[in-house]
Amino acid sequence: MRRLSLLVLALAAHTAFAAPAPTRIPDDALRTAAVLREQALADDTGWKVVESLTTEIGPRIAGSEADARAVAWAQAKFRELGFDRVWTEPVSFPKWERRSEKAEVLGTHAQPLAITALGGSPGGTVEAEVVRFADLAALQAAPAGSLAGKIAFVDYQMIAARDGRGYGPGGAVRSRGPSEAIRKGAIGFVMRSAGTDSHRVPHTGITRYDEGLTPVPSAALSVPDANQLARLVARGPVRIRLALDCGWDGEYTSHNVIGEITGRSLPKEVVVIGGHLDSWDLGTGAVDDAAGVGITMAAGHLIGKLKRAPKRSIRVVAFANEEQGLYGGRAYADKYGDDLKLHQIAAESDFGAGRIYAFNTGSPAPEGSREATRQIAGALAPLGIEYAPTQGGPGPDIGPIAAKGGAWAWLAQDGSDYFDLHHTADDTLDKIDPQALAQNVAAYTVFAYLAAEAEGDFGSRPKEAGAGK
Amino acid sequence: MRRLSLLVLALAAHTAFAAPAPTRIPDDALRTAAVLREQALADDTGWKVVESLTTEIGPRIAGSEADARAVAWAQAKFRELGFDRVWTEPVSFPKWERRSEKAEVLGTHAQPLAITALGGSPGGTVEAEVVRFADLAALQAAPAGSLAGKIAFVDYQMIAARDGRGYGPGGAVRSRGPSEAIRKGAIGFVMRSAGTDSHRVPHTGITRYDEGLTPVPSAALSVPDANQLARLVARGPVRIRLALDCGWDGEYTSHNVIGEITGRSLPKEVVVIGGHLDSWDLGTGAVDDAAGVGITMAAGHLIGKLKRAPKRSIRVVAFANEEQGLYGGRAYADKYGDDLKLHQIAAESDFGAGRIYAFNTGSPAPEGSREATRQIAGALAPLGIEYAPTQGGPGPDIGPIAAKGGAWAWLAQDGSDYFDLHHTADDTLDKIDPQALAQNVAAYTVFAYLAAEAEGDFGSRPKEAGAGK
Repeated sequence: MRRLSLLVLALAAHTAFAAPAPTRIPDDALRTAAVLREQALADDTGWKVVESLTTEIGPRIAGSEADARAVAWAQAKFRELGFDRVWTEPVSFPKWERRSEKAEVLGTHAQPLAITALGGSPGGTVEAEVVRFADLAALQAAPAGSLAGKIAFVDYQMIAARDGRGYGPGGAVRSRGPSEAIRKGAIGFVMRSAGTDSHRVPHTGITRYDEGLTPVPSAALSVPDANQLARLVARGPVRIRLALDCGWDGEYTSHNVIGEITGRSLPKEVVVIGGHLDSWDLGTGAVDDAAGVGITMAAGHLIGKLKRAPKRSIRVVAFANEEQGLYGGRAYADKYGDDLKLHQIAAESDFGAGRIYAFNTGSPAPEGSREATRQIAGALAPLGIEYAPTQGGPGPDIGPIAAKGGAWAWLAQDGSDYFDLHHTADDTLDKIDPQALAQNVAAYTVFAYLAAEAEGDFGSRPKEAGAGK
Repeated sequence: MRRLSLLVLALAAHTAFAAPAPTRIPDDALRTAAVLREQALADDTGWKVVESLTTEIGPRIAGSEADARAVAWAQAKFRELGFDRVWTEPVSFPKWERRSEKAEVLGTHAQPLAITALGGSPGGTVEAEVVRFADLAALQAAPAGSLAGKIAFVDYQMIAARDGRGYGPGGAVRSRGPSEAIRKGAIGFVMRSAGTDSHRVPHTGITRYDEGLTPVPSAALSVPDANQLARLVARGPVRIRLALDCGWDGEYTSHNVIGEITGRSLPKEVVVIGGHLDSWDLGTGAVDDAAGVGITMAAGHLIGKLKRAPKRSIRVVAFANEEQGLYGGRAYADKYGDDLKLHQIAAESDFGAGRIYAFNTGSPAPEGSREATRQIAGALAPLGIEYAPTQGGPGPDIGPIAAKGGAWAWLAQDGSDYFDLHHTADDTLDKIDPQALAQNVAAYTVFAYLAAEAEGDFGSRPKEAGAGK
């Protein structure tokens, strides 16, 4: 690892046999960061970017006509915001689309149900009795074949939490429920939305069918509709009709869109920040994830306005198709993950637009950068952000490069209301608090700038080679 | 007026030339009312009725298959709750139905818009440029012919208020906007929903087209969609497509469903309470108006359980088709409004399920019953209800009989969140607070019982004959 070797040699000139000097942030950079922080809090660039993307493009499911418009929009926006370099990188994936969807209770309590197909579901119309399960474990415990000719209904209510921990079990119903139901013989699958709201806005999201299973129509009920169906099932047998017109339809090539502020002395080394450009089709993708795009574009823009660029480059990535399988993040890692000496650190904003409350970094070799991380946390503290040295992880699209050994930063957003909106028609601009968004921009600006100015790295190392070797 | 004359004669025996004795509530009735009040607060009959209607019948737009099921449900529920007499009375009206509806922005900002047809709108597909107006007055001020070939968009945001006063101007956009737009040449009409929420649930509601105008497709945008369309219009010309499949389709005969607790000494005189049985088709009609049906059925039920029935009968009416023009209330007034001596007083619960905060009564001849009204208010005071002697008016379905001179009572509900839900898909059971509902039941129970026990009347007089003569 070339860069580490140079660092060790440089240190050796001062102290024979010493460990590599710990990474640190220079004092002048900390002073500049304090100024940037206050500028960012008073700046509305982040808000304007979010407003522009959600209004002019609106919903932009991967592979749609709006996906292409969003890619063009992002390039134009990076240029408008003064980024030094703007380019795209292709990202290919299978295309899934929703055309229509409908469900209804049949018989004596006939009434419509508000549902939405899960991403990846096949189309088809099924009409059958519903069998309710309180949670995924109950479905898993059902005898083999016991759902033959039935529609499984998993009625698990996820909890709201600042750190979004309810999404673990909630999201698992969506990702694993359909396959479990098929294994028991079900011809259809419905679930209480993995969400925490109480509106007639069902939550979509990708599901996967295990190899060897024949996919069945799979959908989420809004929370009030799940309540209703549970009450009806408690009264006696309930038949429903689920009619979905949706499915996979060929391959599509979208693009990661990248804007860069060129570093002054180590321009090939990059601090990566970003969000994802795609959204689900139901809302306008405001909290998921125009917010992340706006926060990080605005942070790059503010750093780009400095008279003296930071040492390293600031690379802002608007990732393609996060929603259906981290396609943009995986393409990025494929392209850049084998040259980790150029990867200073990366962070994705993809948990809404709530205030950031905690900060940490991680890598295969974190020891050398603990003090630098603490210094950055100190610069973030006036924003109400705590240093959380034992917590966190990489954002979704950073996951693939982190898996290869890339250092990551965690800027933890308050997600208390995130799952009220996530993947629903209600994910619209009005749900974003401009002040909270500006706090996010300030945090990303400070973090990215200081990481780019650090003397030393944050521990990116190929995982195969072992940490710190 | 026979009853008044008898009263005057009776008084004349005591005091020559005196005015009729004021109406008053006997002390033993006040003691019984205090017991009823506490029983009602601890009783969940109201909640169970609302749960049953919203779950088993669900949406029940007038004239639908569910309307007939609701009529059967109401008869069965009255019987189950022990009412002495249960019957139906036919109510005929033209039938309107919604089949499908869709809207989208066309061109460079292409995206779907969440809309719902206004009740009474014709079907049809129109595609045109949108012209935005801040409010109804701005539309009215537009030059004649200026909207030729255009779609009018009235973007008025109604305010939330405890007493619902925002619905005056908000509802006026819906009732008068389409006709105004047609007069200016518009081929379609869209409005910001008359609502106070921020969800993708547009608010429907009836509209009327003035005589001589050719109706055009008319719809409401959800509040976030109105925001979105306003932002787009601010950027330049916007074309939208509005495709509605809905309209009038023949006549239908539904029924007012009536349950009565027979009075012990004046059984032909009635205190009328009720709600309306129909709902719009988008939600399950929980706050509008299963709540009113549940509150008043429960109140009648609790009075019916007394060992000694009140003097007069308690009549609970589940009115047909309130939503499309007070058809049930008008049929009721046609049948009973000409014999006002039998009409002690009436109140409809049709403003959601928020707590009652104020009480008053009114009639053509209110002077004689002021003290009795004050006595009832006193019995309601422990429920947090104020006596508001200068305020109020009859509920919607009581309007027609009040117009003939029938006395009415006003039990004012807190409607702060009513227009978050009203006429939307979000009007579902989970929005009702069972404690607030029980407070309503307690108030209606106390009011109806005391009005039925009063010595004297509340001033019902044919309006044609003048008040108090």
